[in-house]
Amino acid sequence: MTKVSYLRASHGFRSPAPTPETLLQSHLARIDEREPTVHAFTALNRDSARREAKASAQRWLEGAPLSPIDGMAIGIKDIIETADMPTGQGSPMWAGFATGRDSASVQALREAGAIILGKTATTEFASTEQYSTTTNPHDEERTPGGSSSGSAAAVGSGMVPVALGSQVVGSTLRPASYCGCVGYKPSYGALNRGGSFDTLSQSCVGLIGAELEDVWAVARAIADRVGGDPGQAALEGPAALPAPKAPQRLAVLETDGWRHASKGALAAFEAELDRLRAAGVEIVGRSQNAGMAALEEALDGALALTWRIMSWEFRWPLGAYVKTHPNLVSAAMQGRLADAEKMTPADYNAALAARQRVRDIFAQQMEHLDGMIALSATGAAPVGLSYTGDPRMNVPASLLGVPAVSLPVLADEGLPLGVQLIRSAGDDAGLMELAAWRWTMENPHSGSDVASRGA
Amino acid sequence: MTKVSYLRASHGFRSPAPTPETLLQSHLARIDEREPTVHAFTALNRDSARREAKASAQRWLEGAPLSPIDGMAIGIKDIIETADMPTGQGSPMWAGFATGRDSASVQALREAGAIILGKTATTEFASTEQYSTTTNPHDEERTPGGSSSGSAAAVGSGMVPVALGSQVVGSTLRPASYCGCVGYKPSYGALNRGGSFDTLSQSCVGLIGAELEDVWAVARAIADRVGGDPGQAALEGPAALPAPKAPQRLAVLETDGWRHASKGALAAFEAELDRLRAAGVEIVGRSQNAGMAALEEALDGALALTWRIMSWEFRWPLGAYVKTHPNLVSAAMQGRLADAEKMTPADYNAALAARQRVRDIFAQQMEHLDGMIALSATGAAPVGLSYTGDPRMNVPASLLGVPAVSLPVLADEGLPLGVQLIRSAGDDAGLMELAAWRWTMENPHSGSDVASRGA
Repeated sequence: MTKVSYLRASHGFRSPAPTPETLLQSHLARIDEREPTVHAFTALNRDSARREAKASAQRWLEGAPLSPIDGMAIGIKDIIETADMPTGQGSPMWAGFATGRDSASVQALREAGAIILGKTATTEFASTEQYSTTTNPHDEERTPGGSSSGSAAAVGSGMVPVALGSQVVGSTLRPASYCGCVGYKPSYGALNRGGSFDTLSQSCVGLIGAELEDVWAVARAIADRVGGDPGQAALEGPAALPAPKAPQRLAVLETDGWRHASKGALAAFEAELDRLRAAGVEIVGRSQNAGMAALEEALDGALALTWRIMSWEFRWPLGAYVKTHPNLVSAAMQGRLADAEKMTPADYNAALAARQRVRDIFAQQMEHLDGMIALSATGAAPVGLSYTGDPRMNVPASLLGVPAVSLPVLADEGLPLGVQLIRSAGDDAGLMELAAWRWTMENPHSGSDVASRGA
Repeated sequence: MTKVSYLRASHGFRSPAPTPETLLQSHLARIDEREPTVHAFTALNRDSARREAKASAQRWLEGAPLSPIDGMAIGIKDIIETADMPTGQGSPMWAGFATGRDSASVQALREAGAIILGKTATTEFASTEQYSTTTNPHDEERTPGGSSSGSAAAVGSGMVPVALGSQVVGSTLRPASYCGCVGYKPSYGALNRGGSFDTLSQSCVGLIGAELEDVWAVARAIADRVGGDPGQAALEGPAALPAPKAPQRLAVLETDGWRHASKGALAAFEAELDRLRAAGVEIVGRSQNAGMAALEEALDGALALTWRIMSWEFRWPLGAYVKTHPNLVSAAMQGRLADAEKMTPADYNAALAARQRVRDIFAQQMEHLDGMIALSATGAAPVGLSYTGDPRMNVPASLLGVPAVSLPVLADEGLPLGVQLIRSAGDDAGLMELAAWRWTMENPHSGSDVASRGA
């Protein structure tokens, strides 16, 4: 693997090398080498990155880093505003548009000393239409997934240790799975989306990284400085990645995606369940458990329900855009708008109530569980660049507003495939204990060695 | 009074005159006359307004108006994006900034055939610092109130029948009270704020109008087309203003503002309560009712709690702004940022929990009531243009996220003063029944004569 963890590579910069500058140089060299094929970035700010790395190196030298991620180079999904680079939203209508301000997440990352290295490619409005030519770093004939295409491709090819994405259906965990990265979708609202063209009621800032500890450190750096969405509980938890904690009981969440999963993915998942059982974890599922059967049934229409909710929430701005720029809005988004125009406020309110009922059923089940486990995608990244893959496996956590992590520990067709761990809304720290435990099985030196460092 | 109701003036445009064009001409004439003193607008789009009025007149002539508000000239608070005018947020940092897109509310109003006539002055970031020189239409030595200064001044002086504002503390109801207008703050989330620089967790689109029926028609035009905030129940209710319904029991909400109210305002309010009693309404309050006493006590710290919540939610973008434009952010907002920087995510989460407790107490009380009644402001508009007045009377409805209407039926110092009616979250239609009943006492021909018209 060529992905790089900042926390592991830096080791607190206690020895003369590496430094934030040498690490940045290695990222830039990787970009020179891989970007002509991968096309992860829509903008790069090499000069300011070098200046910031120099300033960060000085802070570490003086023993006064601004945070554990001081000097970390980060890619920013191109729906998230940056003061020094345009925000094109993957849309020909918005190409080159500059607001001149930083989003909440970018403001926080800069305050934490991180280096905003570039903007990463996204599908149009973080939805389905892919205008970019970003490729999967493991196979250039295949999609990196979407909508956080460039973020996953940049991390998966070692160009940055962490990149910000977003997820409303499967836009963080699916590309993380396809590109062999750690993916993290926090509880709904836990990280501030201010200044992101990303207002849907299931969407949140997502993180894609080389290492679980990097991802957690970045999430905490954001939450500590700008909190969550207004009115939503902000992410809380320890500063460093929580210590691994073995689960006693996990439930398999087949989801609507089960019927669409490849044979290789299903076999890899069965082997994963066997590993967990061998480690002493009780695994339950719909066939042994009436509650889980009821939850699976309630989730059967989850994609359609998500689609209805999202379509209505896209009524604006799509209605405005097709009026001023009809030729610069994709047919896919025009179709979404047409779906929305068939709905009324009462239809939408009913859809919200239906979503709440599924959330209540999930919460009931979680009273008896340490988490749920699922595939992160229906299989390896599909061949082709225009279709970013099937999001069905990611619908439940998004619809439920609960935190989910994808760990790149499985394989399908010899390519990366993630396993998805899911926990209750607001218990992101508990999810990280669970994920750290599973991740440590794979990478026995992860986590613990960095727990005590940083500012 | 010089304010103009569109619905009443138009009467469905069934007779040869008036037409949307003649009404617009009268608005433009009023603007020529009063704007040199009132300074309500930051931008005006006379030419496109004339074109739109002509098209609207044609639709009415053909019997095919797009909605009851087809042809209505509307002012838009300058934190709300418009494709054809800049959005300056009352801030020297953002003066002249154009996004090129319409907000959700503006998209909906255009789809309903309304005329977006201009942008109205606001305090900086819809907060406290007043850079504009907008005056009160009833006394040019006095403030129109804020933050929706220009919207209230424009309606109060008859330049437009309705203008959009916003309210996070008292930014719609207070200026409506000072300028003698109807003010309406919907339930939190009931009208879509998309494309408004207005992301705080108590803020909502506010409406200021000449007539209650105009205000309701505009709110419904927005909700029908773009709904509410993502994830929040969208405004529902009948297309025309609900029929007046007399309340049986109302509770007086003194609020923290009671101690700051002028003698004239308190006397006017007592006279109002006497009128209501004479009309057969039972009035209860903290002295007769333990539940109301508990609610008043819980609301005693409402301003401080609101301030803490807002300050943290302003952490972004203020943190980004002071970095890039330190000299273009007011001392008031820099102070707000300093307050925020003393807080942690855990402090914020605790403040949200405290807010929820007050909301629960309010909901309990409302089980036995048809509404609550309060002053809309502590008195008449104060003299001077830099201080926009005391928002204390408006804090409760904002903190509680519940709908409130201000009706300009009282007076203090010979100037307008509003009475505030408050109802439960989501029951905006019920609030309108109550407000229509009170409004009909004052204006016996209001409401019923327009209930059956429109598209």
